[in-house]
Amino acid sequence: FDIEGVAEPVRLAFLLAHTEFEDKRVKFSEWGAMKSETPFGQLPILEIGDDSRKMTQSMALLRYVGTMEADGSLYPKEFMFEIEEAIALLADLDKAWGPALYFPRKPTAFGHDDPDFAKTDKGKEAVKTMRETFVSEELSKYCKFIENLLEKSGTGWIAPTKTPSIADCVAVPALRKFSRGFIDHVPSDCLAPYPKVVDYLERFCALPEVKGRYHDGIGGVPKEE
Amino acid sequence: FDIEGVAEPVRLAFLLAHTEFEDKRVKFSEWGAMKSETPFGQLPILEIGDDSRKMTQSMALLRYVGTMEADGSLYPKEFMFEIEEAIALLADLDKAWGPALYFPRKPTAFGHDDPDFAKTDKGKEAVKTMRETFVSEELSKYCKFIENLLEKSGTGWIAPTKTPSIADCVAVPALRKFSRGFIDHVPSDCLAPYPKVVDYLERFCALPEVKGRYHDGIGGVPKEE
Repeated sequence: FDIEGVAEPVRLAFLLAHTEFEDKRVKFSEWGAMKSETPFGQLPILEIGDDSRKMTQSMALLRYVGTMEADGSLYPKEFMFEIEEAIALLADLDKAWGPALYFPRKPTAFGHDDPDFAKTDKGKEAVKTMRETFVSEELSKYCKFIENLLEKSGTGWIAPTKTPSIADCVAVPALRKFSRGFIDHVPSDCLAPYPKVVDYLERFCALPEVKGRYHDGIGGVPKEE
Repeated sequence: FDIEGVAEPVRLAFLLAHTEFEDKRVKFSEWGAMKSETPFGQLPILEIGDDSRKMTQSMALLRYVGTMEADGSLYPKEFMFEIEEAIALLADLDKAWGPALYFPRKPTAFGHDDPDFAKTDKGKEAVKTMRETFVSEELSKYCKFIENLLEKSGTGWIAPTKTPSIADCVAVPALRKFSRGFIDHVPSDCLAPYPKVVDYLERFCALPEVKGRYHDGIGGVPKEE
């Protein structure tokens, strides 16, 4: 899909590995016809060369791309544990964000009778409360953990790797999205209380391989007219 | 904690790696005092030798234990992608199960006003509906995907490894728990429509390293009196 979504860490890993890839974005209108032909009814899918195999699951693709790179610097064995620890922490953040994100789309999955609950005044209020609570409780907790990891690594990256690893490819989109201002009730300055996180995101986005890729949020540059 | 929980895949990996480990279960009553001293306020934690480092995040620990083993058969590089694909699919299953599991404990996280909603008649009905819907829609979908993976691998394991891999250490507790009969509204025969899944779980639980470990659900043996 033409969003950052779960594929963005894989795209970033390709960029950092200096490996060319065709980034084919699927339109939501095309998805209905495609879905049943995908292995698990999900995107993204990676097809390599003439291999007819459709590889899927973004986190598996990410590790795979991480090992494709010749010098192994994206996913070095010696820091495998630290990289995996950071990726798992970011998965926890994602899990904590899940209900607040998906609730308005499918309230019946969260114990509500009315599928249109999110359109009611009470429903709108509930979404606002959930998201504000997420920002004040969960996002703050995880940002502090991430500041701890950055401090512990001492290299400027989330794991103690000299250059960015696949953990940074996960961390940057996962954190940056909250600063992009497109999510109702999540203010674009919500990361401001965590200057080390802001500095980290800006530093990653300023890498030659990434520079100019983003046009909103922290590390984004305004589009030239 | 003295439950299978997220640590069980790590314990299974230690067993299959024939590596001794001290399985220290924390009582819920002890947790309050411990929590603030853990890196991310979570269990499990792994401490190795005299290293004072507290390693955490079960999925990172699992991969780490997977590479500790001498012959590398738990996490072989050649099938790394397939192993990761299966682990990611199981994470999706876990994510799909999340709301139905956690909703009764904390309904306010899911847009409800009343923290005791799950104790009301309406709340009880909502939990029942969510869990029954999970079994009929999500669990069935994932069991079919897992049957596909087992068929594709052809080795009897979820990834195409000759012997069990860390992906099986994740898959078995993740699937088996639904057959243990301790979750309200999830009947212990809910996996019966997926005979390949049942056969797979029984086969794993019959491995010499695992045999006799479980006393309920598929692959469990009754406790001797």
